[in-house]
Amino acid sequence: MSEIKAYGAEVVGASLKEIAIKRRDVLAKDVKIKIIYCGICHSDIHFVNNDWGMSVYPVIPGHEIIGKVVEVGKEVTKFKKDDWVGVGCLVDSCRTCASCKDHLEQYCENGFVGTYGGTDKYLGGPTFGGYSEMIVVDEDFVLSIPENLDIKAVAPLLCAGITTYSPLMHWKVKKGDKVGVIGLGGLGHMGIKFAHALGAHVVMITTSPEKAQDAKKLGADEVLISKDEKAMEAQMGTFDFLLNTVPVRHDINPYLMLLKRDATMVMVGAIEPIDPVHSGLLVLGRKTVAGSLIGGIKETQEMLDFCGKHNIVSDVEMINMQDVNQAYKRVQSSDVKYRFVIEMDSLRQS
Amino acid sequence: MSEIKAYGAEVVGASLKEIAIKRRDVLAKDVKIKIIYCGICHSDIHFVNNDWGMSVYPVIPGHEIIGKVVEVGKEVTKFKKDDWVGVGCLVDSCRTCASCKDHLEQYCENGFVGTYGGTDKYLGGPTFGGYSEMIVVDEDFVLSIPENLDIKAVAPLLCAGITTYSPLMHWKVKKGDKVGVIGLGGLGHMGIKFAHALGAHVVMITTSPEKAQDAKKLGADEVLISKDEKAMEAQMGTFDFLLNTVPVRHDINPYLMLLKRDATMVMVGAIEPIDPVHSGLLVLGRKTVAGSLIGGIKETQEMLDFCGKHNIVSDVEMINMQDVNQAYKRVQSSDVKYRFVIEMDSLRQS
Repeated sequence: MSEIKAYGAEVVGASLKEIAIKRRDVLAKDVKIKIIYCGICHSDIHFVNNDWGMSVYPVIPGHEIIGKVVEVGKEVTKFKKDDWVGVGCLVDSCRTCASCKDHLEQYCENGFVGTYGGTDKYLGGPTFGGYSEMIVVDEDFVLSIPENLDIKAVAPLLCAGITTYSPLMHWKVKKGDKVGVIGLGGLGHMGIKFAHALGAHVVMITTSPEKAQDAKKLGADEVLISKDEKAMEAQMGTFDFLLNTVPVRHDINPYLMLLKRDATMVMVGAIEPIDPVHSGLLVLGRKTVAGSLIGGIKETQEMLDFCGKHNIVSDVEMINMQDVNQAYKRVQSSDVKYRFVIEMDSLRQS
Repeated sequence: MSEIKAYGAEVVGASLKEIAIKRRDVLAKDVKIKIIYCGICHSDIHFVNNDWGMSVYPVIPGHEIIGKVVEVGKEVTKFKKDDWVGVGCLVDSCRTCASCKDHLEQYCENGFVGTYGGTDKYLGGPTFGGYSEMIVVDEDFVLSIPENLDIKAVAPLLCAGITTYSPLMHWKVKKGDKVGVIGLGGLGHMGIKFAHALGAHVVMITTSPEKAQDAKKLGADEVLISKDEKAMEAQMGTFDFLLNTVPVRHDINPYLMLLKRDATMVMVGAIEPIDPVHSGLLVLGRKTVAGSLIGGIKETQEMLDFCGKHNIVSDVEMINMQDVNQAYKRVQSSDVKYRFVIEMDSLRQS
């Protein structure tokens, strides 16, 4: 067990500050990773504030982790010292339930072990995330990073990337499909990039006309302003798939009207009650509303390989660890294009 | 054009009374049907009361029609005089859109022609439903009735039957699946019968413990009282499919918790805003809420043939036309097991 520096909150809603935490020793199948970059996800903020009532303090957030292997356990076969690797939202799962056997560890029936706020099988205490110098993770939950990618901009792929990639795969979005991505933030900007790379006709759906130019740069073919009733009406019944990345409670009824018969809208942003849905909008057209949670490890690796092939990374703004509280405020006011990534050397040098 | 006796309402919410209406002459592809039985569907009452803001008066309700062919047009090939036939919720559609070509006339992109309150292509005025002596319908929208079935109890299959059969087929419910049918009324009792006939393990989910015995007689293997929190918790995450037949606004969150990963709940009862759904319940398990509307003509015939093979009919209570207003009140207070069917000779003899 080694003590290292990390950054986190000790009670609900506290500002993040330097905290000493303990990492487990490297076990036979473990990979010890020196963290070089860590993305800031909106759910980090939810955890710090205990918005979902499930936080364990101290919270060390961070589940978009990029680093270099510094040590491997004696049974590790997939990684070696100096490899660039990633760790996302999961660091373990039961590995025996139906979901785990289907490579869907994110739906582990016994509860996956989250990268932070989960329960470390060996140390017992809570797991600690990526706002820290180092992490020790079972190799089965460590990802390989394609060499051609801009490594610091890979970090957000581990959460924002897989969260949007997985539903596009599961609902079989293909070339020529008309796909709407609702909301242009960390998730939305990745949704546009993936849907575009899959050959879909991508429509960015947003309340903010000022986002139009950016959306097109990211790969959107069209921008639909959801407050423009005439524009919305003109596109009724024309979408094969909608990816809803809006992170807060909202009214999804206008979006349901955009779907074709038998088409699906998938919720990946909001984790809270949404405004009342008129079931007639589902019934008339056999439409579907579904949800999707991140992705399994196998699919996350496939996503990274897809990114390597299509040269896809996140658009990021780099910050130092000491600026994290300010960055949180900017995330909450949607003032980031489109993901903050922390230079972790700034923590080591503090 | 012939004038006939019918029963309907002339203004919003009026009691039903005898009204004279006109039926078109028998065209080349038409079948003229002497109506013998007509079921009472809850949506008949919604139309009489203009609950959905789309009623055209006078309203002659009735879209669960059973009768005998009395005349056929010169190009009719499927039916002959004296055949027992059925007419359900649709009497025409555009026949050219993608949905019509996929045998899904209920989702006709140009709007199907409803059996009542639609627009008769030839007479121009509104279509009139089955609370009448006679109806003239294009043979493509007329169904054959298997000879072995109790004919008066077939009427409700044309709406309550196909509405529950179609989603079970579309979502591929199969032998051994655990299927919950939520709500035991006209739709729910058919849902139990079909799911049972498909070999599913059927759980009747109801707020009313007194419905347990009936549900088992209808084919339910288990009854789950949705107000019993412990019983609900014990069945969390165990259902392959839920058919929600509750006809009014309600809270679907407790039912979403019953679904397995990747499983679906289909709404077929309520056509109105439902209580706020917690999107986390969809996200954690990649679950789905969908809607489904009746069924196409091809599938309705398949459903009738399935009923013939499995000897399935509706449980009905027969009434005379003159008792319809009293029957409406009883439907509204769920005081019927499980569908009223009108003996139409009572209209002719009035």
